[in-house]
Parts: sequence; C-alpha cells; structure tokens
Amino acid sequence: MSLYGAIEAGGSKFVCAVGTGPEDLRAQARFPTTTPHETLGKCIEFFRAQPKLDALGVGCFGPIELGRGSPRYGYVTATPKAGWTDADVVGPLQQALGVPVGFDTDVNAAVLGEARWGAAQGLETAIYVTIGTGIGGGALLGGRLAHGLVHPEMGHLLLPREPDDLDFAGHCPFHAARCWEGVASGPAMERRWGRRPETLPANHPAWDLEARYIASALTTLVLVLSPERLILGGGVMQVEQLFPLVRKYLRSSLAGYVQADAVNSGMAEYVVPPQLGQRAGIAGALALAERAAREPPAPHP
Amino acid sequence: MSLYGAIEAGGSKFVCAVGTGPEDLRAQARFPTTTPHETLGKCIEFFRAQPKLDALGVGCFGPIELGRGSPRYGYVTATPKAGWTDADVVGPLQQALGVPVGFDTDVNAAVLGEARWGAAQGLETAIYVTIGTGIGGGALLGGRLAHGLVHPEMGHLLLPREPDDLDFAGHCPFHAARCWEGVASGPAMERRWGRRPETLPANHPAWDLEARYIASALTTLVLVLSPERLILGGGVMQVEQLFPLVRKYLRSSLAGYVQADAVNSGMAEYVVPPQLGQRAGIAGALALAERAAREPPAPHP
Repeated sequence: MSLYGAIEAGGSKFVCAVGTGPEDLRAQARFPTTTPHETLGKCIEFFRAQPKLDALGVGCFGPIELGRGSPRYGYVTATPKAGWTDADVVGPLQQALGVPVGFDTDVNAAVLGEARWGAAQGLETAIYVTIGTGIGGGALLGGRLAHGLVHPEMGHLLLPREPDDLDFAGHCPFHAARCWEGVASGPAMERRWGRRPETLPANHPAWDLEARYIASALTTLVLVLSPERLILGGGVMQVEQLFPLVRKYLRSSLAGYVQADAVNSGMAEYVVPPQLGQRAGIAGALALAERAAREPPAPHP
Repeated sequence: MSLYGAIEAGGSKFVCAVGTGPEDLRAQARFPTTTPHETLGKCIEFFRAQPKLDALGVGCFGPIELGRGSPRYGYVTATPKAGWTDADVVGPLQQALGVPVGFDTDVNAAVLGEARWGAAQGLETAIYVTIGTGIGGGALLGGRLAHGLVHPEMGHLLLPREPDDLDFAGHCPFHAARCWEGVASGPAMERRWGRRPETLPANHPAWDLEARYIASALTTLVLVLSPERLILGGGVMQVEQLFPLVRKYLRSSLAGYVQADAVNSGMAEYVVPPQLGQRAGIAGALALAERAAREPPAPHP
C-alpha cells in the first residue's frame, strides 16, 4: 500500500494529511496561510515527521501555472492573495521532500477525488462546482483534468439575467452582474438580500432565484462539456432545498434539447452533492499524489 | 503514404473524398442527403471505385452516438432530419469497405483537421465554432476530442441579453432568445433585421450587436475550457468586419480576468478564421481516418 501526502492549499489555510486514501488518513494538520515561506515551511516540517511518502499531491487556490513547459510550472500566479503572487509552491516541496508532486487547482483536485473514491467513480467526464464565497469548477474530461491556455475559471461564465432580478448591481469585481459568481455566490446573495444566506429561511424567494441562476450555469456547462455527472459542493449548496430546485430548473432550462436519460428521467443521479463531503479537498490531493506516483515527475527548471 | 477516405456528412449533402491530406485530394464527389440507404450506398460505390483505403473518416451532422460501448455507436440519433433518426452510419460503411472507420461530429472533425494541418497545429486545446444556419462547436481538449454524456452542443450555451436587443423574441425552438443560436445564428439575424445577413451593409448596427453576442459566448468558452485558440468559421463569419469587432468585445468582456498574453496583447492570433477554409470539413474527416488507422477499430456489435 503506497503512502501519500496531501495538501489542500487554500487562501486562508493549508490542510495537510498523510494516508492511503480518504478512509485511511493517518495524520492531519492545518496551518494558516501566511507567507509562502512560512506556510510551505510548516507543511514540510509536518511531512518530514511522517513515514516516507511515495508522492505528494497539492490541490491549490489559484490562478496557478500548469504548463509543464513553463519555467513557472507549479507557481501560484496573479492571485489577489497578498504575498502569493508568483509564489513557487511545487519547487520547495519537491526539493525538501524528494518525492513526485502532483499539482492542480483545488477544484480539479476535488473532481479527481470524487472520480477516485466518490460520486464520479467510473466516469470519464464529470464536473465539480463549489458555490460559496466564490464559485469555481473543475472538470475531468475524457479521464484528464481540464487544462488549456491556463485552467478553467467556470465560476465566471456569463448568464442571462433573471427577469425579477434586473436591478441587482452584481458582486463580481470583473463582470459585475454578468457572470455566475456576480449573481449567485454567497457574498452576492448577502449583498442582494442584506443578510447572510445561511440566515435566510427555507421559504425565502432568495432560494428560488439562486436555483434558477445555478440551473442556467449548469445548462451552459452541460451544453459545452457534456458531463456524465455534475457534483455541487460549497457552503451555499449545504442548504437542503436547493438540490431539488436546481434539478427542476435545469430540466426546464435544457428544454428537452439534450436527448439523454440522465438529464431527463435521471436528474436525481445527475446533479448530486460530493460523496466525500468535507474530505473532498484532501481526497483530491491524495488522488493527485497517486497520479504523480504513476507518472514521471514534472520537470522543474 | 497512407490513403484515406473522408466523408463530410451534412444534412443537405454528403461530400466524399480520397487523399493523403487536404493538399492531396485525389478524387471527390458529392451526393444529396436523401435516405440513409441511398446516400450511404452512393458513398460506398464511390469509395469502391478508388484504390484500397487504409481507413475512412466521417464528420457527421448530429446528434450522434459516440459511446464505444453503446449498441448504437456510430448512429445518427434524435435528428430532426427526416429518415435519419436512429440511422446507422458507421456499420454499413465498415461492412462494405472493410476498413477502420473514424467517426465524430462535423465540428469535432473540423477542429481536429485544423489541429493536424491548419490554425491549431501544435495545440492541445482548441475550439472550432461554426456560425451560420446554426451554431455549433467542436473542441480538442488535452489532445482528445470532446465527448461525454453525448457530445458538446455549445451553440446552445446561454447568454446575457444585450440591453439594446431586449425586444427580440429569439429564433431557437428550444431556448428562444436565451441561447447563442437563438440570438446570433444567420436565421436569427434575418428574423431580427428582416433581411438576410449577407445583404446588410458593413456599417449596419446588426454587426456590432452580432459581435457582442459572439464575444459573450466566447467569454464563456474561454472561462469554461481555457482554449489555446478559438477558430471561427461558417457563413456569418465570412463578413470581414466581424473578426476585429469580436476580438475587441471579447477583450472587454473578459475584463482582464484571465491573465494570459494570448487574450490580452495577442488577441489577433487567438481568435482566427479556419486556415483550411472550405476544406476544413473534409480535412477533418481525413484526420479522423488517420486516427482510426492508428487505433483499433471501434467495436460494432
């Protein structure tokens, strides 16, 4: 049984774990995200105190550089997080620990973790979306994580405005009310309704509107990527009544255009919560480690 | 030098060709799309009169079944085209000609052709969109053609309405004015302006509006797929003034969110016409044949 290290690298904390899989985590620690030197140093210290790892996986906040040919491969790039612009993440870890390091976005890691141990097992094409403070999405496409010019930022895809929401100014600093995050993130909801989403009662009209925006975004994702399953996580999706509403509106928004049982009769199995729950992030990083152990380590000039 | 057959299978005609590549087409023929039996029979007759092929490629109108495990692999499925619902395309060709048959959507074929011989050479992740009677898109993602639950239908992704176009009822039978095809296809333009797009003068406001809708759709495609290049073909994109307008509005719609030279300083190389022009379809089918020759033939139960 191979032993892997995992880092869920977020803007406020880094969660580290060691294990063979999400059901067998042998040690865990969390460190606040301060400077790259200090935070990565604490991670290294933690892993050095563990038995020898076979590989390490890092699911990282972004944007990050994933181009294997780039001299900045493994860096966080143009982030608003102070101190982390152009910070090398993979380099220091690889040098200190001497093991292959798998590296990807936090949301690509999450979809890979769900494909390995959770709600997307056996699927080749699946999407994981988190809806909370921000909106982000990762995709497994034909068995590979979605990379390209950079990596997907699907939380900012553009949406039609709902007719009862034309006055809202939106909350995205880049796209105002034109993009998904601008109208449907937790802070967008708070700005629209004047209170935090978790304090809104189940029968508040906020949830119906939220479900319609999420369903519009998922409509576009289904039409562009044709996923076999959509996994929705994050704080906003903890609200129980949202899943049935999102499924209902996704079906009506697709309007019968896609001829597949999954999106017609099988919607309850098509739009689902993450099966790994709170462990989705760390499981994803373990899955990245597992992949890194099988592949040649990334060149790091 | 291997010799390949190619079929560009459209709803109004099937174009057949034999060659080693798009610069070396040795024979060509076109047959009207009547019944599957008659049309495929004419294709078979044409190829039988040619030297022995190493493989055949078919870029096909859709929707089609691409699941290798499905008993309907290689079929056109729920098409509105009379007589073609659940029509087996690959089966009769493979049986009659005895060669491996590559099969994909017409737009996936086009992006593969551009990657092999045209505007996407050397790229792993690129999108080809055709804007004409309908809007459709194909994608090469990490070197593989985009498949999933079915295949992408990106012409129907949802869009924000432009503020000066709120009264238009739209032209999509499924999504009215909510989707790209509903507001920006050739017939949508004709319905909005009361005349065929090719008769609209260069300074008509139709082109500015059209460019804004195309740019919004490309914004979403960039954010969801992170392509290294966007190739825009089809009748509407023949209009010269459209490319600079689309590039301008795509840059402003992304609003600096994506930090990559390609979408900031390099837009002229990022949004481009197909390099293979009118031959993109047949070149794509040749590229599918080339892939099929390298891979084991699809199981056909």
